[in-house]
Amino acid sequence: MAEDMLSIGVDMGGTSIKFAVVRGTEIIDRAEPVRTQDFVAPDAIFAEVGKRLRELIARYPQVKAVGMGIPGFVDHDKGIADSLTNVPGWYDVPVRAMLEEMTGLPAAVDNDANCMAYAEWKLGAGKGLNDLVCLTLGTGVGSGIVANGRMLRGSLGAAGELGHVSIDYQGRPGYYHNFGALENYIGHPRIQEDAAAAYAAAGQEKSFEDCAPYPLELAAKEGDAIALEMWDSIARKLATGLLNCHYLLNPAAFIIGGGVAKAGELLMAPLRGYLKAQMYAPHYARLQILPAMFSNDAGIIGAARMALEEAENRQA
Amino acid sequence: MAEDMLSIGVDMGGTSIKFAVVRGTEIIDRAEPVRTQDFVAPDAIFAEVGKRLRELIARYPQVKAVGMGIPGFVDHDKGIADSLTNVPGWYDVPVRAMLEEMTGLPAAVDNDANCMAYAEWKLGAGKGLNDLVCLTLGTGVGSGIVANGRMLRGSLGAAGELGHVSIDYQGRPGYYHNFGALENYIGHPRIQEDAAAAYAAAGQEKSFEDCAPYPLELAAKEGDAIALEMWDSIARKLATGLLNCHYLLNPAAFIIGGGVAKAGELLMAPLRGYLKAQMYAPHYARLQILPAMFSNDAGIIGAARMALEEAENRQA
Repeated sequence: MAEDMLSIGVDMGGTSIKFAVVRGTEIIDRAEPVRTQDFVAPDAIFAEVGKRLRELIARYPQVKAVGMGIPGFVDHDKGIADSLTNVPGWYDVPVRAMLEEMTGLPAAVDNDANCMAYAEWKLGAGKGLNDLVCLTLGTGVGSGIVANGRMLRGSLGAAGELGHVSIDYQGRPGYYHNFGALENYIGHPRIQEDAAAAYAAAGQEKSFEDCAPYPLELAAKEGDAIALEMWDSIARKLATGLLNCHYLLNPAAFIIGGGVAKAGELLMAPLRGYLKAQMYAPHYARLQILPAMFSNDAGIIGAARMALEEAENRQA
Repeated sequence: MAEDMLSIGVDMGGTSIKFAVVRGTEIIDRAEPVRTQDFVAPDAIFAEVGKRLRELIARYPQVKAVGMGIPGFVDHDKGIADSLTNVPGWYDVPVRAMLEEMTGLPAAVDNDANCMAYAEWKLGAGKGLNDLVCLTLGTGVGSGIVANGRMLRGSLGAAGELGHVSIDYQGRPGYYHNFGALENYIGHPRIQEDAAAAYAAAGQEKSFEDCAPYPLELAAKEGDAIALEMWDSIARKLATGLLNCHYLLNPAAFIIGGGVAKAGELLMAPLRGYLKAQMYAPHYARLQILPAMFSNDAGIIGAARMALEEAENRQA
């Protein structure tokens, strides 16, 4: 069974690619990350990825599969990434085939947020549920959706993009000029800018650093009115995004992680309030709002697990 | 195969319950509708439903199954409706068991918009697709979702409620006090009120009747600036609702029906423009926006088909 087996998880981030050998939820060993900006040609990056993978396989020959999470659109069935973030000019990249060729192992590739959601669903806070939304509150808002007991990837691998969901049809234009995109309100940089603007409007002196989520959390805990209002406002906007998920998907649970979520009850208490006030009461009563179990390694753990389970299913 | 077989579709609307014997997309025969307000007790309504069903079965003894669509939350697997619209005080109604007991036939029950979506998916505009959103623009905005080749009903049968999706976190409160609910902007009555307000603000004399969608369509076609602006505004708000579906579900197609959609290109042309402007271009290029194939009988056809297919699956 998958529980005892080793597989490799690869997580492609904005600036580096991380590698680990995984057993269940446990990180057994890691390889040196690949810093994508050290390489000009995409081929050179993947040659480096292949080196790291072969290193790990040499140390752990019992590794059964390789999974990789990529920020961007992935056609999971075909194993093709639409493009690679921070690797300009490379489209329709056959990542799965490349991983399989480099390692001789069965491979899987998916969107990074889907890998995180997979980890929480199979091994973490969402274990046993058939319908859930897992989200990460960071620079942006990433998410992955499980519906009817399967990952929901959509027709082009573009599903589960909660950060792009609109909370205001006339609001701030997002990455695709989509008005009112949630992450344009509650992504880390926008929180910081909005807090700075709020302090400035109130005539209060604050450094830009002091407007970041963590100092804002400390200030709110000391009773700072503007900081408290900021967290209430973040909760209200996040609630609208989650309500949109609720009314379309009706998940049994929201699983929430990421740096901005570290504010804990400061965010969660008003979030619950805004959700409760805008839902049919019997549905709110049965909705679970859970903290994510995994943090930085969620993507690696999920990718490793996904690759292993899919390899097993192909054998069966 | 289901194509040649007869089944009965039942569609519970706001004021009446309609019945038909169906073969594929064809209505073979109908029974007299039951007007719900003619009966006080819920039991009396269902006794009447049973009478109609037995009438039809006596005329078509080869009928194989009975399906019913209900406006409201339905636990499809258990066959239980959370409550019956316009039948106050009746909760957790075991509709499927009642239908089976009354007819001796296998039965299915689902939300009415899900039944419409089922018809379009299995027999109509969405045939062959694995991921679609089917919506009806009328008094409210109803919708049903297919994802991964299955109806998406969610953990409590509350999925697919596009009318409740927010397009403005500070907007008009909806049925569940959910701010900015789409149907509070583009539902038939709100279109009429908004148009009346727009004409009044412009100092133009218009009867309330002339502000309804159909007269508004005629006025726009004659170049009336306010009417044209209304349709553009409806398209913009609807686009935001569809973008929210796109970013969460990434369907291959939107299938659009209902009275308000009869405005045709007046609505569809700006709708396509707003979608295109707010999506990743390769995704917009592959998105299908299709008119619904069925109109008033979509719910009946879908319910009849769903019951038949589920009965066949249970036998297999």
